[in-house]
Amino acid sequence: MSTRPSTWNVPASRVAKNAHNPIRQIVDKLKVDPNAEKDLISLALGDPTVFGNFNVDDSCNEAVIRNLQTFKANGYPPAHVLIMLKSPGTEQARAAVAEKFNHPDSPLTARDVILANGCSGALDLAINVLCTEGQNMLIPRPGFSLYENLAVSRFIEAKFYNLVVGDSYFNPERSWEADLEHMESLIDDKTACILVNNPSNPCGSVYSEQHLRDILALAEKHHLPIIADEIYCDLVFKGNHFYPMATLTKEVPILSVGGLAKKYLVPGWRVGWVTVHDRNGILKEVHEGILNLSQLILGPCSIIQAALPDILHNTPQEFHDKTIEQLEVCEMAYSLNTKISEEGISQIPGLTAVVPQGAMYMMVGVNIADFKDIKDDVEFTQKLVAEENVLCLPGQCFGYPNFFRIVITPPADRLKEAYERMKQFCARHHV
Amino acid sequence: MSTRPSTWNVPASRVAKNAHNPIRQIVDKLKVDPNAEKDLISLALGDPTVFGNFNVDDSCNEAVIRNLQTFKANGYPPAHVLIMLKSPGTEQARAAVAEKFNHPDSPLTARDVILANGCSGALDLAINVLCTEGQNMLIPRPGFSLYENLAVSRFIEAKFYNLVVGDSYFNPERSWEADLEHMESLIDDKTACILVNNPSNPCGSVYSEQHLRDILALAEKHHLPIIADEIYCDLVFKGNHFYPMATLTKEVPILSVGGLAKKYLVPGWRVGWVTVHDRNGILKEVHEGILNLSQLILGPCSIIQAALPDILHNTPQEFHDKTIEQLEVCEMAYSLNTKISEEGISQIPGLTAVVPQGAMYMMVGVNIADFKDIKDDVEFTQKLVAEENVLCLPGQCFGYPNFFRIVITPPADRLKEAYERMKQFCARHHV
Repeated sequence: MSTRPSTWNVPASRVAKNAHNPIRQIVDKLKVDPNAEKDLISLALGDPTVFGNFNVDDSCNEAVIRNLQTFKANGYPPAHVLIMLKSPGTEQARAAVAEKFNHPDSPLTARDVILANGCSGALDLAINVLCTEGQNMLIPRPGFSLYENLAVSRFIEAKFYNLVVGDSYFNPERSWEADLEHMESLIDDKTACILVNNPSNPCGSVYSEQHLRDILALAEKHHLPIIADEIYCDLVFKGNHFYPMATLTKEVPILSVGGLAKKYLVPGWRVGWVTVHDRNGILKEVHEGILNLSQLILGPCSIIQAALPDILHNTPQEFHDKTIEQLEVCEMAYSLNTKISEEGISQIPGLTAVVPQGAMYMMVGVNIADFKDIKDDVEFTQKLVAEENVLCLPGQCFGYPNFFRIVITPPADRLKEAYERMKQFCARHHV
Repeated sequence: MSTRPSTWNVPASRVAKNAHNPIRQIVDKLKVDPNAEKDLISLALGDPTVFGNFNVDDSCNEAVIRNLQTFKANGYPPAHVLIMLKSPGTEQARAAVAEKFNHPDSPLTARDVILANGCSGALDLAINVLCTEGQNMLIPRPGFSLYENLAVSRFIEAKFYNLVVGDSYFNPERSWEADLEHMESLIDDKTACILVNNPSNPCGSVYSEQHLRDILALAEKHHLPIIADEIYCDLVFKGNHFYPMATLTKEVPILSVGGLAKKYLVPGWRVGWVTVHDRNGILKEVHEGILNLSQLILGPCSIIQAALPDILHNTPQEFHDKTIEQLEVCEMAYSLNTKISEEGISQIPGLTAVVPQGAMYMMVGVNIADFKDIKDDVEFTQKLVAEENVLCLPGQCFGYPNFFRIVITPPADRLKEAYERMKQFCARHHV
């Protein structure tokens, strides 16, 4: 017989309590009264759409509209009861992703693609299928806070491997590489996988082929699969090259995650995917497991799934070129280009920007010792909001104190204005 | 130091292995060679869009298109870093849901609404926030298999309370009521909640006010919160009335889940919601917990979120009336209406249909003893595919042997044809 409580007591589950965002407390500190005399410039949110200068290509919108108007893409994808027990997305959408990311050195078919609700959803699938409660996974520091959040919500330990700032001025292509020795020291018999984020949020780094091969060699040595977060895949600036991790190994099984969010400038559409790279049949059970998990979520919006072949194959290359060009202008003109050095952020006493090579972020170091009344990056960003109404995320949000992250997608004049305000701010607080 | 394996061994996680669909093995048995001389009539998938006779209203499409064309709804919803740490959806979309489902006896504000990826996503949030591994929840039998699937994937025990067929001919409004005595006998100190599905999939039943009050009284007695799956909320046939469960109690805290899928005929759009009904502050921690969980998924497609106020408030009532009318025609004309009884399914020897009152389903009993070469519902549906190419889900998919479920959304002539084939099928197999 039951011994039910005699009053109402409905606690949240253990998972829900554990799922609170690790950066929440930090970000809460930024909720200060901003200087109301200045308009807000937010360099905080990794969403390229907020300023109106990065818009999805018309052709993508048209593909979605065409599919709406057929009335044939409103059902569950896939719409057959005998196959909907696994819900990795429609055959056409998955084939389109496979074709787009197919490579002679890492071939893909529709079978290898599982669609998810955004790249976050894809990350959740990848982490959830590889890691069991009580195991651990290796995560970059600095790194995107969702990795830790997803892991911890499932009682998987997040172990952080260091990325090394490097000598960003003289050898920028080695910035933010993984400290392999440190990475190896974290591996134990409970380690389930290594997560590699390239190009990186928050670093804006793009790894060299050699560095990726070095990470793969370590994974191979310890028989660890890799989750490659490649959502920023082709967002790389001139002189850099993006290597899909799966193309550089014949041994290490890889779950690569990506999506439309950044490259097509539609993070709100929530279309992501996992591609399974498993040339030696090592991930057989894992592959089946992702399909199991996919039926719990039923995949992204059917209309966008229907439009996906058009979006991936018919978006003009000029659209992507223009995106990169815009990002390069933001990065070069106002952060590091010595020709206009008076506006460059690294010319501001107390700040050291690290050259970004891709994605849409730049990490800026704060030489705390040089500031008379600021004790760390959180206080720096807090006072920057209060005095200048410029909002940036402190490095502690990425596990990396005394840096802050700048999103470089605002229009050039807004960025310039933000840097100007930072300059005045630093002038007031610098010793 | 690590003791890593010396070869590759990458198992799927415990969760992924546990997430396989309980009805998978049953449905696999239906994969037989169908009679190729007849075209397929599928009465299996609860997706009203597959036959082309139930289309979303043009006004909903137009609302989506308008929002696509503004280029202002492509970002993360909500698009501000200080609030995106909780991702229950945009303020406007949540306010629209609150306004739509607000009721004097169960008031709602935007704060009480959390958007999710479809009603399945909403169910996942509700189950995940209320139940911890090792606890149990009460689930109706017959019932939608996803309930069990979601629970089991999180190591929550699914305990099934019986629904009672009742005397469907003489007292149809009491069909498929919960057996309250049985329900109460299942409650123990590990029970976290009771799930009530009204109107019901697969039963097509719509509960009376009194029956809902009886369930609530039991929940109140044992201090158990309720998950009310009300996705079929207003899809009720003439003479029946849908009572939102939260409007009938001042004591029992309720998480109601719903979405656009069925009422707006767009299951593929994947827009669902949880509404939190908590008039006595009992769910304070749970409410916070859902917000925690929501940030792991980031909510449904931003474009549809942006269109949601228009969809919920400006879809003409005639659209909904027409949907119900179409469903009534399917149900009445070809299943039970005595005026055309020669076509009614209950006139087929060996079959007993249970009058549906809403949703889009009908359960049909198979009097197995009367069939000479069919041992159960699975074999019945299997042979029905093989011989007549009519696909129905056997009752075992819903935990209820010797019934099968019919989806009543096909066009009337297709349903009529399906019933004609069933009649011939039964004539061959009936003693």
